[in-house]
Amino acid sequence: MIETRFDPAARPYSGRELRSHFALDTFGIVGDSAVAFVGPCKVELSEMVDLVDVRAGASILSPLMVHFIVEHFGVALVEMVLRQRLLARLCGDLLREQGVEALLVRGNDLYVAGKKASVCVATRSPVSALIHLGVNVRTEGTPVPTWGLAERGLAPETFAGELLSRYAREMDDVRRAAAKVKGVP
Amino acid sequence: MIETRFDPAARPYSGRELRSHFALDTFGIVGDSAVAFVGPCKVELSEMVDLVDVRAGASILSPLMVHFIVEHFGVALVEMVLRQRLLARLCGDLLREQGVEALLVRGNDLYVAGKKASVCVATRSPVSALIHLGVNVRTEGTPVPTWGLAERGLAPETFAGELLSRYAREMDDVRRAAAKVKGVP
Amino acid sequence: MIETRFDPAARPYSGRELRSHFALDTFGIVGDSAVAFVGPCKVELSEMVDLVDVRAGASILSPLMVHFIVEHFGVALVEMVLRQRLLARLCGDLLREQGVEALLVRGNDLYVAGKKASVCVATRSPVSALIHLGVNVRTEGTPVPTWGLAERGLAPETFAGELLSRYAREMDDVRRAAAKVKGVP
Amino acid sequence: MIETRFDPAARPYSGRELRSHFALDTFGIVGDSAVAFVGPCKVELSEMVDLVDVRAGASILSPLMVHFIVEHFGVALVEMVLRQRLLARLCGDLLREQGVEALLVRGNDLYVAGKKASVCVATRSPVSALIHLGVNVRTEGTPVPTWGLAERGLAPETFAGELLSRYAREMDDVRRAAAKVKGVP
Amino acid sequence: MIETRFDPAARPYSGRELRSHFALDTFGIVGDSAVAFVGPCKVELSEMVDLVDVRAGASILSPLMVHFIVEHFGVALVEMVLRQRLLARLCGDLLREQGVEALLVRGNDLYVAGKKASVCVATRSPVSALIHLGVNVRTEGTPVPTWGLAERGLAPETFAGELLSRYAREMDDVRRAAAKVKGVP
Amino acid sequence: MIETRFDPAARPYSGRELRSHFALDTFGIVGDSAVAFVGPCKVELSEMVDLVDVRAGASILSPLMVHFIVEHFGVALVEMVLRQRLLARLCGDLLREQGVEALLVRGNDLYVAGKKASVCVATRSPVSALIHLGVNVRTEGTPVPTWGLAERGLAPETFAGELLSRYAREMDDVRRAAAKVKGVP
Repeated sequence: MIETRFDPAARPYSGRELRSHFALDTFGIVGDSAVAFVGPCKVELSEMVDLVDVRAGASILSPLMVHFIVEHFGVALVEMVLRQRLLARLCGDLLREQGVEALLVRGNDLYVAGKKASVCVATRSPVSALIHLGVNVRTEGTPVPTWGLAERGLAPETFAGELLSRYAREMDDVRRAAAKVKGVP
Repeated sequence: MIETRFDPAARPYSGRELRSHFALDTFGIVGDSAVAFVGPCKVELSEMVDLVDVRAGASILSPLMVHFIVEHFGVALVEMVLRQRLLARLCGDLLREQGVEALLVRGNDLYVAGKKASVCVATRSPVSALIHLGVNVRTEGTPVPTWGLAERGLAPETFAGELLSRYAREMDDVRRAAAKVKGVP
Repeated sequence: MIETRFDPAARPYSGRELRSHFALDTFGIVGDSAVAFVGPCKVELSEMVDLVDVRAGASILSPLMVHFIVEHFGVALVEMVLRQRLLARLCGDLLREQGVEALLVRGNDLYVAGKKASVCVATRSPVSALIHLGVNVRTEGTPVPTWGLAERGLAPETFAGELLSRYAREMDDVRRAAAKVKGVP
Repeated sequence: MIETRFDPAARPYSGRELRSHFALDTFGIVGDSAVAFVGPCKVELSEMVDLVDVRAGASILSPLMVHFIVEHFGVALVEMVLRQRLLARLCGDLLREQGVEALLVRGNDLYVAGKKASVCVATRSPVSALIHLGVNVRTEGTPVPTWGLAERGLAPETFAGELLSRYAREMDDVRRAAAKVKGVP
Repeated sequence: MIETRFDPAARPYSGRELRSHFALDTFGIVGDSAVAFVGPCKVELSEMVDLVDVRAGASILSPLMVHFIVEHFGVALVEMVLRQRLLARLCGDLLREQGVEALLVRGNDLYVAGKKASVCVATRSPVSALIHLGVNVRTEGTPVPTWGLAERGLAPETFAGELLSRYAREMDDVRRAAAKVKGVP
Repeated sequence: MIETRFDPAARPYSGRELRSHFALDTFGIVGDSAVAFVGPCKVELSEMVDLVDVRAGASILSPLMVHFIVEHFGVALVEMVLRQRLLARLCGDLLREQGVEALLVRGNDLYVAGKKASVCVATRSPVSALIHLGVNVRTEGTPVPTWGLAERGLAPETFAGELLSRYAREMDDVRRAAAKVKGVP
């Protein structure tokens, strides 16, 4: 099982947290991990990793998000994108179970009633692959219509802990699924 | 884009269809593909690839399913399991949009109102990786409580065509997502 | 940590045990594993996987060995050979600590006072990579001069349990070592 | 066979030598290589690649070491860690054969009579994987109890040449081991 | 099919164009690509990626070249070198068909009547593998004897368009070739 | 350098020679290899590995060919197809240098004056990747118009030896090319 950690201390997200060994530097975790914390989000263009977004000049801004940073070692970028998509969908499932309606997952983006609920990107470091998923908690002042956990009264701490746990279980389940099938001709 | 094909001809599924180049042998498709057809499903223990199911003696039986067979070349088994999970979730989304309620995705299995709606497995051939997804259409005589598309009056042909198309787009989107991000330190 | 198991039931080794999912079929273990048991060893040429030995006509025979079967999923053959070499060297260390003198490790073979103490091979199945390591317990009737654990009065059960445990820890340590270093230019 | 080189010229080791193409830049070697030289070792925290050591504030200092730098192209980090472990164990074997007693290998570290005899790390560059192994020659002024080759009167040049040669043979043997086995079911 | 683009705007080549996402930044292309443009070539030693050339002090200079930049995602460096070699040979074929005689391909270099017609290198970025191929158009002032398209009156635009198209087809053909063969024992 | 061998003994080619360890079983070669021999060629549909050809019912027949069997360990199928293409092009170069005119290489096929000069396929075994290249020597009785070495009076032994040697050098050159470039941003 990958290691998970929710840090109750608030911490802004600037994009520079999406780097190799953030979990090791911050929490002392060695190995695959999924960690989370709550904080405002402001990612300048120079820190953005999605170059299509950079070309569109679309910087990222949110007054309060719950941030997930996932790191897997020995994983190629395409495989990490697949894990990212699963994380987004586990997030969608969890929101639905919490009573959020009109929820849509498109690629790695979540929408609630047509409003953007999250940002998400997967990339590579020299030694690992990484995901950042940010889910809005509050949404005042965002440049596009957005939805946040606070609209449903969902506590980000509880939400984060549950999503971390589900992601870790799903990854373990994926590992097991690849270890219990015989080959075919 | 991977190639897709829905074959209107009915065809039973015995497990032996889950092999390399089924799409090439059957439809002349060379390369990554997702194909579908409708037919009864009876997989003997000797043809089952999930060895945990084999140990449990759980053979697979359904009077009518829509079958999806996906093949990717140059893909490791763990990565194929991740694609399988996305296929199951795209299937779940499509059912929800068609008005199916109380739908749950657990790993690669779909449940509707607690009844099993699908079977799914991913494995390797000597030259490729493969997925079989079977979604019940009718359910009389199944050994466990099951749900089928016919309960909602959903036509398997339309359903299959739409899911094939969404899977192909999702895979293309995954490919693009890995080609537009800069690395991080 | 990979799962380990020592089976106290005696079981002959014929070479056919070196196959994918031996640990799943036999012990219900899903995932990377190292298992061990005690039994006579007789591997016919047709079951041997080292083709240089096959060309030399050197079948394998031992009245009693402790057998280790290791399975890793998602690992290429060269990497498995490297793991095999480490297993052989951990085995050598353990024997030295038990007071065995004049011990030499050459590639994946162990010698005690110039006598062969083990057989070892690594190979691939369609879905995994595998190692067989057999360490002689008794040696009467072997075709070449051999050494066995019984000469030192070492109990194979204790020996096997300790080696399984050390191998599992070493593999975990290797995983961690690859997750705690920054890249260099 | 990988190319090897012992450079008789003394050369300090600062950590910056652990980079891609050190052997090409220094000796004109193109391809996989293992090279060695003798010199003092002082690695500042900013140059250390083991981030757990960095967190512990444990910089590296030795008045004289024999340094090995190994580079393999096309090798993932986990596989390089496995090669590193074999290098450490070949080093241990060689010391034992030279009469060094009470020698222990723990992961990639060598201890003689409980004193640290070496430092070792494996990492990635953008185009290759690399190992640094430093074995103490002299030990005055080291921050922890250490052992050096000089205590046994071992000449670092002879020692280095022999270890380089054994590592090259072992790597060739590993390559061959993966090319002479048939697959199993 | 990979995406191709010939940019009619002249553009100098300094070596810094050989970077990840040049085609995305310049042309908005997301995914594998082969692009071309015409311009003078001056690559300082500090920008050169072939370190054997750097050691030889051989900077690159041409008054006018047609430049090809190819990017593949998810491809290891050795595989990219193989693609580079094919690109060089497709280039050679095209020149021959245009009536160029005494043409030789040596590795990734093209010679016409013993004069150097091209420069070519393949390397890695953090997220992709890249090729630069420059074919001389004019050759006045080059440090070694060179041949250029203008000697045969070949228009670089037509030449570039045809080579881009052939490379894209060849890569698609390679993909298909790997998807239509059964494995052997 | 990969090992090469030309066997002067005539030997028919039936397709079953395209298997793992043919060079080990036949010549005792352990590791990557390229071997050649001369003999008639008759490959039944059941032994053919190109499934598009099998669908077309196009069995392979030649009264005398020089056969090349190449085996690389640790190489994926797409990469092997790239090596195959280079082998075909080296073969084309050699024929041109021997004075063969009107020679065309299309994918992995060679044509002389519009007549088929060769057959070629690349595939996977459980432990390696393999190429078969057959170049016609004589052509009487072939089902399609073909060209053979005998038309130009080329001795198959000399031709085979030279092509084996060039392929081995090219593969070594490819290995070196991937070991002498620095990464780019």
